[in-house]
Amino acid sequence: MSGADERHMRRALELAEGGRGLTSPNPLVGAVVVGADGRVVGEGLHRRAGAPHAEIEALAAAGAGAHGGTLYVTLEPCTHQGRTPPCAPAVVAAGVARVVAALVDPNPLVAGRGLEALGRAGLAVTRGVLAAEAARQNRAFLTAMRERRPHVTLKAAMTLDGKIADVHGGSRWITGPMARRHAHRLRSEVDAIVVGVATVLRDDPELTVRLDTPWPREPWRVVLDTTGRTPPRARLIAAGRPERALIAVGPDPTADAVAGLARTGATLVRCPTRDGRVDLGALLADLFAREVRAILVEGGGEVHAAFLDAGLVDRVAVFLAPLLVGGRAAPGAVGGAGRELKSAVRLGELTVTRLGDDVLLEADVLREAPGEGSRAPAPPRER
Amino acid sequence: MSGADERHMRRALELAEGGRGLTSPNPLVGAVVVGADGRVVGEGLHRRAGAPHAEIEALAAAGAGAHGGTLYVTLEPCTHQGRTPPCAPAVVAAGVARVVAALVDPNPLVAGRGLEALGRAGLAVTRGVLAAEAARQNRAFLTAMRERRPHVTLKAAMTLDGKIADVHGGSRWITGPMARRHAHRLRSEVDAIVVGVATVLRDDPELTVRLDTPWPREPWRVVLDTTGRTPPRARLIAAGRPERALIAVGPDPTADAVAGLARTGATLVRCPTRDGRVDLGALLADLFAREVRAILVEGGGEVHAAFLDAGLVDRVAVFLAPLLVGGRAAPGAVGGAGRELKSAVRLGELTVTRLGDDVLLEADVLREAPGEGSRAPAPPRER
Repeated sequence: MSGADERHMRRALELAEGGRGLTSPNPLVGAVVVGADGRVVGEGLHRRAGAPHAEIEALAAAGAGAHGGTLYVTLEPCTHQGRTPPCAPAVVAAGVARVVAALVDPNPLVAGRGLEALGRAGLAVTRGVLAAEAARQNRAFLTAMRERRPHVTLKAAMTLDGKIADVHGGSRWITGPMARRHAHRLRSEVDAIVVGVATVLRDDPELTVRLDTPWPREPWRVVLDTTGRTPPRARLIAAGRPERALIAVGPDPTADAVAGLARTGATLVRCPTRDGRVDLGALLADLFAREVRAILVEGGGEVHAAFLDAGLVDRVAVFLAPLLVGGRAAPGAVGGAGRELKSAVRLGELTVTRLGDDVLLEADVLREAPGEGSRAPAPPRER
Repeated sequence: MSGADERHMRRALELAEGGRGLTSPNPLVGAVVVGADGRVVGEGLHRRAGAPHAEIEALAAAGAGAHGGTLYVTLEPCTHQGRTPPCAPAVVAAGVARVVAALVDPNPLVAGRGLEALGRAGLAVTRGVLAAEAARQNRAFLTAMRERRPHVTLKAAMTLDGKIADVHGGSRWITGPMARRHAHRLRSEVDAIVVGVATVLRDDPELTVRLDTPWPREPWRVVLDTTGRTPPRARLIAAGRPERALIAVGPDPTADAVAGLARTGATLVRCPTRDGRVDLGALLADLFAREVRAILVEGGGEVHAAFLDAGLVDRVAVFLAPLLVGGRAAPGAVGGAGRELKSAVRLGELTVTRLGDDVLLEADVLREAPGEGSRAPAPPRER
């Protein structure tokens, strides 16, 4: 049965992908119902926050065919009332004989209780099938649940000699159309896009998701701006709903800046500072409270260094273009004071994706066991 | 017959690879002899400078079987006396009816005359079969013949954020064992390894080829050292035959430096300077006269910038490690004053090779048509 379990779970993972970027603050979930005779009788996925959970969709599709069958689901069925009713009772009511889950839900409101309830109700329960794949698929959600802060991806577009801009700050465009389109895909998968005010002043980006077809969600457009230098006419404010532009200022922005930004309708968030800059742990706590589960940090190099120094980076996405610009003074992807090679931030396996002439390299930041001592100080916690 | 032509030429290219790193100043050449009945009757390659040419080896293996058959050779047979006798007469003497060559020899001493002579002798001649692959295989030789200077590859090992060392200059080791072994393979394929004196003073490298088995050739170990600061005890001098350590100084090195280096047996080459540094065009001319056809420039960033600014780079090999060190002051792969993004050095298709945890990215520098105007000034020519 193990081969069939993997096959059906793989299909459930594939179905779950259909919700990528649309389900937050919920995870991606896919489900397959196999009838007593071994044939697939229903499929489902969680399509967006507020829509039915994957297992409910799959059971609805299966109807009476679910009776005596098996439900494959990439995440344990929930037991609590959220925006939709709990799933575990519905699974029992559908009469399936067995439930196979890839992952136990890390949400403390679920955390194994869903599968326990199903077991108590007399269903056979299997967990851990394709668990690694399922964890990879929901890495942002799982990190957010574990760390109680959004999952953080640093994104940079560099020349092959490691520059994110030329000596004059010019960075349009380092990468080609396919890479830039993919960068919008990355934006579509997060709940907030974060830049430093220096990037706003230099490039005046919109920080919106621009894909071939309109994207139904609008990630927060966030600026790290201790003193409130973001111009009220900055494009990122008017590029979408103004209140989705979040300007993270320090405790003492100038009154003029506050008044000017307030008139635009942008959201002003006052954060404590740390070494004269917005405290990133505090900002992430604020974003988490706004149901932000994943953010994309688009630099520049000083902002990237600040996130790394705070130990608040989970993943890196570097677009590399077949160009050389050179320049001692041209900025690299990570600025700051830098660290010694022996204390470098270590990354996991590099994933390589070709995008036209460019190459995308992605990797997770490796977390060392506590006490190994070569890590940056622990991140400030929200509570 | 075209499918068979390609198949036999592909085999000839494969045979030629057996000489990689060993044939300079000659090109890589492979040959296959197919008898009149279509069966392969002989194979050969040029194994090292001074050894028989590929077609001679293949014809010897074929013996009488060559009669009425076809000779496949990756480069046009030569007509001139070099270290070995000319090949074209031997081809005629062997009685083959047809010769298929991938490339015409760019050597002005050959340049089509070999194939012409064979045609005049009554043989059928086909050229251009797998010409692009053959040109790629011998890119260094072809560049050297065309430009009358060695082919130049820039090599760097970087962190994923584009740093070739940390803020303290530490660079051992950025990449892992597989990437470092591959870097020695790249060294084995060139005739000289070039660094700046700053690298010698900081890292004291040996600049030797260290592979699992001893390598039969010893590339020149070259230091760019305008004022003669290379310590007489620098490891690169004693790491092999001292005279294969070449210190390229300006017109006025200190007398002490000259005396000290002369005592070591190292080769001192006085070069004109340009902007206070060794003129790279002049150095390459000197190396070319020493039969150097390919060099590997191993930095640092200022040396790389000088080669790029002089328009003297043909290829780039960047090893990327899954590490982040950051640091505004940490050096990148290319220093110098830098250029504007719109005048960036453009590279051809990126080749991606995984080496353990690291990734190697390689590409040729694209040459623009004269007059397009977005390139660096034309390189100084040796004559």
